[in-house]
Amino acid sequence: MKIELNRQSQIPLAQQIFQAFADRILSGYFPSGSRLPSVRKLARTLQVSPVTVIQAFDLLEKQQLIERIQGKGTFVTNRSFGEKEEESKEEKTLLQIPDYLHRTQQMYYNQTPARINFSSPIVHPDLLPTNILAESIQQLVQREPEILAQYGEIQGDIELRQALATYLVGEEIKVSPQDILVTNGSQQGIDLVARCFLGPGDIVVTEQPTYPAAIDIFRSRGATVISVPMDEEGMRMDKLTALFDTYNPKLIYTIPTFQNPTGYILSQKRRRELIELAYHMNCLILEDDPWSEIYFDESPPLHIKAMDHYGNVIYLKGLSKILSPGCRIGFLVASEGILNRLIAAKTNADMGNPLLNQKVILPIFQTKLINRLLKELRETLKQKRNMTIHLLNKHAPSGVSWILPKGGFNIWITLPKGTNSIDLLSFMKQKEISFLPGSACYPSEIEWNHLRLSFSNVSENELSYGIKEMCLVIREYLHALHQQRGQTPLF
Amino acid sequence: MKIELNRQSQIPLAQQIFQAFADRILSGYFPSGSRLPSVRKLARTLQVSPVTVIQAFDLLEKQQLIERIQGKGTFVTNRSFGEKEEESKEEKTLLQIPDYLHRTQQMYYNQTPARINFSSPIVHPDLLPTNILAESIQQLVQREPEILAQYGEIQGDIELRQALATYLVGEEIKVSPQDILVTNGSQQGIDLVARCFLGPGDIVVTEQPTYPAAIDIFRSRGATVISVPMDEEGMRMDKLTALFDTYNPKLIYTIPTFQNPTGYILSQKRRRELIELAYHMNCLILEDDPWSEIYFDESPPLHIKAMDHYGNVIYLKGLSKILSPGCRIGFLVASEGILNRLIAAKTNADMGNPLLNQKVILPIFQTKLINRLLKELRETLKQKRNMTIHLLNKHAPSGVSWILPKGGFNIWITLPKGTNSIDLLSFMKQKEISFLPGSACYPSEIEWNHLRLSFSNVSENELSYGIKEMCLVIREYLHALHQQRGQTPLF
Repeated sequence: MKIELNRQSQIPLAQQIFQAFADRILSGYFPSGSRLPSVRKLARTLQVSPVTVIQAFDLLEKQQLIERIQGKGTFVTNRSFGEKEEESKEEKTLLQIPDYLHRTQQMYYNQTPARINFSSPIVHPDLLPTNILAESIQQLVQREPEILAQYGEIQGDIELRQALATYLVGEEIKVSPQDILVTNGSQQGIDLVARCFLGPGDIVVTEQPTYPAAIDIFRSRGATVISVPMDEEGMRMDKLTALFDTYNPKLIYTIPTFQNPTGYILSQKRRRELIELAYHMNCLILEDDPWSEIYFDESPPLHIKAMDHYGNVIYLKGLSKILSPGCRIGFLVASEGILNRLIAAKTNADMGNPLLNQKVILPIFQTKLINRLLKELRETLKQKRNMTIHLLNKHAPSGVSWILPKGGFNIWITLPKGTNSIDLLSFMKQKEISFLPGSACYPSEIEWNHLRLSFSNVSENELSYGIKEMCLVIREYLHALHQQRGQTPLF
Repeated sequence: MKIELNRQSQIPLAQQIFQAFADRILSGYFPSGSRLPSVRKLARTLQVSPVTVIQAFDLLEKQQLIERIQGKGTFVTNRSFGEKEEESKEEKTLLQIPDYLHRTQQMYYNQTPARINFSSPIVHPDLLPTNILAESIQQLVQREPEILAQYGEIQGDIELRQALATYLVGEEIKVSPQDILVTNGSQQGIDLVARCFLGPGDIVVTEQPTYPAAIDIFRSRGATVISVPMDEEGMRMDKLTALFDTYNPKLIYTIPTFQNPTGYILSQKRRRELIELAYHMNCLILEDDPWSEIYFDESPPLHIKAMDHYGNVIYLKGLSKILSPGCRIGFLVASEGILNRLIAAKTNADMGNPLLNQKVILPIFQTKLINRLLKELRETLKQKRNMTIHLLNKHAPSGVSWILPKGGFNIWITLPKGTNSIDLLSFMKQKEISFLPGSACYPSEIEWNHLRLSFSNVSENELSYGIKEMCLVIREYLHALHQQRGQTPLF
């Protein structure tokens, strides 16, 4: 394990050290009960004062990630972060080969197998245009088999970029094909932005909570992630402004429409404020748009990119969720100077998307079939949202609350304070039901009592069964908790 | 532009600064004639002494990358690195948005359009099994259209990994499917290894010269690249041993069979020595194998990975060149502890290859068709190699030499000392013929008088015409040079 400290950063060293350990503990790299290095040893290795190490350990203890046992040492807390059993024999190797992996919570929680999968915000295969894509492939290989023998352009196939540009113009984002870079899904989009613009000690601002895999990526560049709370209008601009008094962020990462995981929408007013703030603070905005087309009631506000007159906004869209995971395509839109750097990073990363997949999805945009598909997906997912709310209203114990999703794939559920959804998840695993524990969504100041439930990936029967069962388990869990604590029930 | 300095590194600060500038100048980011910051300003920004900056500038001047004009300042040399015209208006933005892109020479030279393309070591589309792949796709979408709606496993499709494991066993690499990670081509393979194991100040050892895109990737992690000369037996083990007296490298990057760009083969004896050396120096080996199956005379020595009893070797293979660029698939093989980290890095990078492409190439391995295809490719490229040698023998001016390729796609040609193949390339562009200037292949201590010619991507007619024309242009270039210098001809 390697800890990179940036002594020029505005982030205190103690906090950098805290973050490095927190990441790895939460990613399951240090099994519960494993011993941390001594204060003296760590201070020597990192060339900091022992006081700094003690401050870092204080922060870890406050977050209940470590516990200090007098006379014995300091240990990772014995709780179910769900350590990976197969890693325990790897411990020796872990410490011998220093690596630059900070945080891979996404991978950790992705591995949870389940019969009823509420943890992945993906669309049930039945809802995807598989037959249309299959048809597209058939015609493609008959008509143009030679594409299999060609490398695509690094920036992405020009025909696809033309079709995407047309699509974006329909979304009020006025671009041409040269403003677009095709990526391997939206994951790679975030990764390329991070590679280009973030390094050790740089600061990224996100919503609180936010998308776990994005936290992973930013941390893997050694950046510090500072999160800003939200309310019903999305990211709090007053809090963001106050943050700018102390810090100089490089990048603001936002998921403004049906925010992942909460579902909040950043209001039109706040989008304008965000643009002005970021520009005056010389800060880039990365606007991540996984599913703005999947609105259930009214269509959402204009994309931030549609109002980007300063040229500081990078727009990111993934097509895997709404079209075809098998093809794994996303794209970035940015002004020329920024996009050229992203293309350079893409070149280093993999020299361009495979051409085959780009040609496969091309007809769906060229024929405007995409609009019909999105309309159908909206209708189907709206029904699932309605059913989810109905079931929760019917079966959830009191003390449990949620945010009504106005679009997207997820619902953010809050349990009473003092609960821990990771513990709940281990009970749920016995029923083979999974969800995403909310703690994975916090870069810091972790809150333990939330969970994200994706209703997009299950059939109606599974939804019905799954939510009933989950509510039962929650009820039992809350009961057991209050008995354990000898307290009057929390509700 | 951001320069990251590692003050704990064994590499002197002046050299780190030199490298940062050299990378960007050679990548065309600083147009010819653009002015460098003053010594005082740079010293202040980087928090180093002015003497250190002057040392860095001395190194740049010695490499003819900058020139100091008394009373005016220090400028990028006025020579044809071939600055990108579209970048010049971007200069202001370039300096305003700091980025972490060190070196993208691969991208730069990839952009050279040409009627006769000797610069890309790829296979002419006619030589690829396009029809077989087209057939495979047809059957795939009829039989299993649902794969379009599925995310593949992050590590790669299990069926493909099983087929690849069988293939590797045939190559004497005893592995099982869990030892394999499927990547987006070999480019991503190098990138993932770099992300995992390299950071600012770490040292990578390569052959000298080596594959340009690999240098780009290592530099983009802030690593220092130290290269070791070769002879007819490949990387010089005596030089490598001596290097270990001074430095503690993290990784040795080698292309042992038909080395890119020289074509040299690392002998069996030296492969064993390399394994022992690396193990005792606690150093990883990244073995890059683009085309070992494409041998013209005798089959090459065993893969280094086949002899890896310590578990320190990471084996990398790309399938794009020999099978299908359109699918862009490669894979890494490593022992468990190392592979788990690579999988975590892959998760952050893009969460796994698209499933479609993996299923497309699967039958080619399952049916053992791959062996027949490689045999045909061997025969065809051997003919092109023979033709290339014949043409060079017939038309090349004296003073021009080359290394006889025993396999692979390239030939490494050396011009007389004092020539510069970048200048030659600009003359060749007028004939719409391209090649890769050798200077792109040197991390440092650049040699200017070589070029790499790929004979794999042209028809026989193009090969014949192209080499004749190139030899003519070389002749004219050498003549013009010696006239310019008022010297007796160099030959």
